[in-house]
Amino acid sequence: MSLEPDSARSMYEGALLGLTVERWGENEREIVEHPGAVAIVAVDDDGYVTLVRQLREPARKRLLELPAGTAEPGEEPLATARRELQEECGLTGGEWRELAAFWTTPGFCRERMHVYAAEGVERGEASPAADEDLELVRWRVMEIAGRLEEIEDAKTLAGLLLYLRELPQATSPG
Amino acid sequence: MSLEPDSARSMYEGALLGLTVERWGENEREIVEHPGAVAIVAVDDDGYVTLVRQLREPARKRLLELPAGTAEPGEEPLATARRELQEECGLTGGEWRELAAFWTTPGFCRERMHVYAAEGVERGEASPAADEDLELVRWRVMEIAGRLEEIEDAKTLAGLLLYLRELPQATSPG
Repeated sequence: MSLEPDSARSMYEGALLGLTVERWGENEREIVEHPGAVAIVAVDDDGYVTLVRQLREPARKRLLELPAGTAEPGEEPLATARRELQEECGLTGGEWRELAAFWTTPGFCRERMHVYAAEGVERGEASPAADEDLELVRWRVMEIAGRLEEIEDAKTLAGLLLYLRELPQATSPG
Repeated sequence: MSLEPDSARSMYEGALLGLTVERWGENEREIVEHPGAVAIVAVDDDGYVTLVRQLREPARKRLLELPAGTAEPGEEPLATARRELQEECGLTGGEWRELAAFWTTPGFCRERMHVYAAEGVERGEASPAADEDLELVRWRVMEIAGRLEEIEDAKTLAGLLLYLRELPQATSPG
């Protein structure tokens, strides 16, 4: 089977998202166009990971998540991640590595996400966008394994679990 | 802040997805409407987990994922999961429990996903939908931790990592 569609037509082009209907042989697929995104497991030298709690309009509730953001046009994922972590959380510096890269919902959306660990970050002044209402929440790294039930976001679960795998003493339940 | 939008207008209604623009105070949010979904970590008595490899048109490549599917109208998540596991993989029976429930992409999409573990499932005949081209892949549970780099799908990473947390001997790298 070819890895290009036979045809594609745009049904919606918005500020963040688009929607395309592609024909692949006998099948029509509705695909959400998305510029890609990043999330960061940011840990400071005191052993705290920083999370953000914010209203997520699609869920109609406030959710606790890793700091994250959407790529600007032409921006490299690591640059997006450093920019978002500074803007949302005021965290800079640190040693960075990629934990994973994945599609968030490959059945219907073009969003690809890179997740980073940033260790030894330094606290400074955040500068969130005007439409963001962010509460910063800090957990001790050693608390994470016992509090995963508070997380209702896929990238946050995946990112924290990947990070914990490298800390064997923190992976056992409770 | 209210947890209902001030207004909402539908921009697209398709076969699987819809797109709504909601106004929340000063902000407009583009939101993908989705009926919700499930994924299953299905393990048989021989110690194999069943994964599916299929073309994911948004990614334009074949991806290795947990068996998963979309809720039919009015269907309970556990019923969706049992149905999809039988249809995609021919797996029935087993002991079921919920590993997690989360939003897949709460910044822009209404999809909520339930992830189950099903242990002791029995192999039978699959009956995939006509538009599905699925390859079944079996990994030993003990292999999973060393092969996570082959996974490029968020729900699959989260589901497998949650399952591994309950198997301490399998969580250390390599």
